[in-house]
Amino acid sequence: MEQKAPQTEHLIYGKNPVTELLKSGAGVDTVLLSDGLAPQVAAYYTAMAKEAGAVVKRVKPAKLKAMCETDSHQGVAAWASQIEYATLEQLLDSATQKGEPPFLVLADGVEDPHNLGAILRSALLCGAHGVVIPKRGGVGITGTVLKASAGAATRLPVARVANIGEAIRRLKEQNVFVYCADMDGVSLHKNNLTGPIALVMGSEGKGVSPLVKRLCDGVVRLDMAAQGTGVDSFNVSVAAGIILYEISRQRSGQ
Amino acid sequence: MEQKAPQTEHLIYGKNPVTELLKSGAGVDTVLLSDGLAPQVAAYYTAMAKEAGAVVKRVKPAKLKAMCETDSHQGVAAWASQIEYATLEQLLDSATQKGEPPFLVLADGVEDPHNLGAILRSALLCGAHGVVIPKRGGVGITGTVLKASAGAATRLPVARVANIGEAIRRLKEQNVFVYCADMDGVSLHKNNLTGPIALVMGSEGKGVSPLVKRLCDGVVRLDMAAQGTGVDSFNVSVAAGIILYEISRQRSGQ
Repeated sequence: MEQKAPQTEHLIYGKNPVTELLKSGAGVDTVLLSDGLAPQVAAYYTAMAKEAGAVVKRVKPAKLKAMCETDSHQGVAAWASQIEYATLEQLLDSATQKGEPPFLVLADGVEDPHNLGAILRSALLCGAHGVVIPKRGGVGITGTVLKASAGAATRLPVARVANIGEAIRRLKEQNVFVYCADMDGVSLHKNNLTGPIALVMGSEGKGVSPLVKRLCDGVVRLDMAAQGTGVDSFNVSVAAGIILYEISRQRSGQ
Repeated sequence: MEQKAPQTEHLIYGKNPVTELLKSGAGVDTVLLSDGLAPQVAAYYTAMAKEAGAVVKRVKPAKLKAMCETDSHQGVAAWASQIEYATLEQLLDSATQKGEPPFLVLADGVEDPHNLGAILRSALLCGAHGVVIPKRGGVGITGTVLKASAGAATRLPVARVANIGEAIRRLKEQNVFVYCADMDGVSLHKNNLTGPIALVMGSEGKGVSPLVKRLCDGVVRLDMAAQGTGVDSFNVSVAAGIILYEISRQRSGQ
């Protein structure tokens, strides 16, 4: 089944533009490579696309020409997301402008676009000021993420940082209390989640990395009524939703 | 990209076996139809597959022969899930056997297999005794649902009922208090969610139907800190997770 590129994307073509795009860390959903491309050139773009979390599709030269509406595509094109990433400082500024203590979500290496989309959606609804994702590891703001976010990805600023650990350090310098979600933490409702706060969620397979966990001020645990079922964690977007909802509840003073 | 059938499925072939399978309401992920099949026969199976929520794939006769390891496939095969559906009564019996007040989840028309899988996963972890889904409308327990449930679909009994409204009536006769999730209900934490309980979640697009809502004893609302964002609901599996976690917390007496 062919996926239709969302209207919020535009096509970039030509070797240099696509190279720049992929290196910039901007949201790229799909890289299109002409069947006529030399194998080593195709391999170069395939590797770079993989690094950027984009899918590679081989297309016939005639189709690429039709899509680009020109012959000058050099065999390479990419669907670029129109999302413009913010900086960590812009996320914090957004909180200041609203006169609210900062409330951020760091999605560290979330790989499934449905999950990242759902996290963005929950973060927006729970009143967070933005979401931070890493430049490498994990999915960027692709078309699928946009769709799964129900549009939240275009409403909530997203910062893409080179290093999540460094982002946590900068947040702590700004007196933001940084929590991560992990199994050996303090039961969710026993935490005071008011005040300047950031929540770090790890990847689907591995959870929060030990390195990132050591940097955090606190660890939040979700209790599970059923033990020994062979299923030992919630889906990452569900876990994020449960914790964000509780943060939102505590912040609203309910 | 071809999806590999999960190991928890087995291949059924031949016209009658596939017809019976599709009519039985059992979990069918994919129906395979030979390219050599007469158009009207292919149309018959395509319609029935659609009814059962299964995907249709056209394959070459040689491939079908190789998959079935026989010539006697009659041009028709289907990947059948090994999930055996339970009855509503079996779900309630499971609660009785554990000496717990019943705790069920009704997913009424959830269409995205990732969402149904995540709901099953949350239901299992939160201590629910089972999940109820409708025979028509919404996805069944397909291979994708199994995978998204992280195996929960094989641990937690799932009942497939002809009529969700009828299931709600039967639950109410058993003194189960039936809640649904909707925007105009009572704020989540203001509900007493202890005792025999069932939670109805609606579909992604439409939420809980007015008919089903009228049958429910109570309506639970999720509060949203951010208003007027253009995003007016959580992802259905996230919403289910937030409510199920709160039910679980209240039931555990925390």
